[in-house]
Amino acid sequence: MNLLTRTIEMIKPLDKAAMEEVRARQDTLTKPAGSLGRLEELSIQLAGIQGKARPSAEKKAMIVMAGDHGVVDEKVGNWPREVTAQMVQNFLRGGAGINVLARQVGAKIIFVDMGIASDLKPDPQLIVRKVGYGTQNMCLGPAMTAEQAVQALETGINIVGEEADKGLDIVGTGDMGIGNTTSSSAIFAAMTGKSASEVTGRGTGLTDEQLAHKIDVIKRALEVNKPDPSQPLDVLAKVGGFEIGGLAGVMLGAAARRIPVVIDGFISGAAALIATALAPEVKDYIIAAHVSAEAGHPAMLEHMGLKPLLNLDMRLGEGTGAALGIFLAEAAARTLNKMATFAEAGVSEGDEAEK
Amino acid sequence: MNLLTRTIEMIKPLDKAAMEEVRARQDTLTKPAGSLGRLEELSIQLAGIQGKARPSAEKKAMIVMAGDHGVVDEKVGNWPREVTAQMVQNFLRGGAGINVLARQVGAKIIFVDMGIASDLKPDPQLIVRKVGYGTQNMCLGPAMTAEQAVQALETGINIVGEEADKGLDIVGTGDMGIGNTTSSSAIFAAMTGKSASEVTGRGTGLTDEQLAHKIDVIKRALEVNKPDPSQPLDVLAKVGGFEIGGLAGVMLGAAARRIPVVIDGFISGAAALIATALAPEVKDYIIAAHVSAEAGHPAMLEHMGLKPLLNLDMRLGEGTGAALGIFLAEAAARTLNKMATFAEAGVSEGDEAEK
Repeated sequence: MNLLTRTIEMIKPLDKAAMEEVRARQDTLTKPAGSLGRLEELSIQLAGIQGKARPSAEKKAMIVMAGDHGVVDEKVGNWPREVTAQMVQNFLRGGAGINVLARQVGAKIIFVDMGIASDLKPDPQLIVRKVGYGTQNMCLGPAMTAEQAVQALETGINIVGEEADKGLDIVGTGDMGIGNTTSSSAIFAAMTGKSASEVTGRGTGLTDEQLAHKIDVIKRALEVNKPDPSQPLDVLAKVGGFEIGGLAGVMLGAAARRIPVVIDGFISGAAALIATALAPEVKDYIIAAHVSAEAGHPAMLEHMGLKPLLNLDMRLGEGTGAALGIFLAEAAARTLNKMATFAEAGVSEGDEAEK
Repeated sequence: MNLLTRTIEMIKPLDKAAMEEVRARQDTLTKPAGSLGRLEELSIQLAGIQGKARPSAEKKAMIVMAGDHGVVDEKVGNWPREVTAQMVQNFLRGGAGINVLARQVGAKIIFVDMGIASDLKPDPQLIVRKVGYGTQNMCLGPAMTAEQAVQALETGINIVGEEADKGLDIVGTGDMGIGNTTSSSAIFAAMTGKSASEVTGRGTGLTDEQLAHKIDVIKRALEVNKPDPSQPLDVLAKVGGFEIGGLAGVMLGAAARRIPVVIDGFISGAAALIATALAPEVKDYIIAAHVSAEAGHPAMLEHMGLKPLLNLDMRLGEGTGAALGIFLAEAAARTLNKMATFAEAGVSEGDEAEK
């Protein structure tokens, strides 16, 4: 049995007993019942995922995966392909948005070259697991082979597994890849049957004319490849990307290890569409950090039944939204674990006052 | 000229030049223009407030003010009056929600007894500036005298001023006071002409019957006192609270010192209604951390033209929402200050690719 199949079989439902215990504890903490709102919900989810009544979000990591996309040949965006590699260099020097935010929330970052079109200078911070030198142009045929799709997923499983072995409470996902909103929109359309125009947004900032062209490119990619929505691996191979497959693998691997996975925006969302189609239970292991400003993102989250924590009109990618989501997950775990109970604090309870 | 008048006169418009400089810098940072959404807006506001193009949110404090309310005699809530003092003890022992969250975001907390009904054991963490031992029952007459209203405001101005003298980049507001949603609803109705039923929520968790009673209490308080909406001091005196006046003073004092003030939920919102009525420019110095689950809060923020950052269904008070808002303000300042520019990072710009 291969790693992918084995990982999917390892994914189990949430731990209901731990969730019940947290629900009960929340009502003993010194606050009106339910008054921490979504932080309380989040603490219950964390407990169900980790299988313990005192979940922790102290050991934090962001996994940021990069890859190039052949579809950039169709001029779908307004940034040249080289920017993928240039931005990864920026990550390694600590100058990007994700560096600043991950530092603020105390998360380490694992950068993975899943398939950048060029070779970067070796760097101890960069894990090179290239599935290829960029995908093929999906307007002309499949973006990758079926074997590459499995390799991308298994690479993600391995990466998060290696980190889990070192000790990991919670992981966030991020991406870098010029052209990857185009691939993500194509995955979204392929998996849901939505039209190209429904699922396509302006990415890094397109004009109306450029947007119409991008929609046309996605239509052509879908017509040429006819991805089969009942076969998520087929969709990933035909219109996906190496970093998207890798992130879907991270989600599967995290769920198999009972590690909560905080997903970023549109690209992580496309990866989640693949992961949750391969293993529906993964959905319960996902925390949707934010709804991004990319046009299709609200519908994408809704399709998966995911409710975002934040709505800050962000659309940077890199995992910047996920880093903020990790902060909230930590707030949820800490309030659960560190607030005093009514009994400990000697505070009269509301209900008692009524008796 | 007294401290209140002097403080109001010190409040100036935001620094437009600093804001322009930040707007320009944001477009040079290594990300698609505008892609950090509300964090970018926030960085611009911070610059306008602090009057510098590299605003900072490193030195952080929460000011949490507590006071008791005579209207509790009318049984408006389901928690006994003693809980105010008990919860402040819980604050001082570090066991409340605000302790956990302020610690996480690295903010110190300044606890102020503005008018708890009893004397607490002296504690180096507690600043005692009692304006009285709880307000009077506003159903029978004014909650406080006009002199007490001014004293509450000036106490808030002094507290934030003392902290500013030690070095303060950003301040958050929080409250504790059994009965204070009732007072806040009355302020909201008095200042806006809205009906008692429009402005009244379930506070710590009331039944339908209890809610109807609370609305009736607020109606009576407004009928008995006839607060004059054109005189914010009159409204504060007649239906306000010592901690609410104190927090309004913190907002005025912060604005006068060019310090951004992150406000919490419904009670801080009522204080902001008073502060912005006394000095309309204060609005630009306020960052609304979140919209709380308390029924009247969205309309309250809308009335002031404030757009909340978070919507997490929280209604705990204590400044818990404001602590999360401080985290986002720090994220805004840090991304602005610490991200590399395209030139620094050697990354091709989207626009250049189009040229």
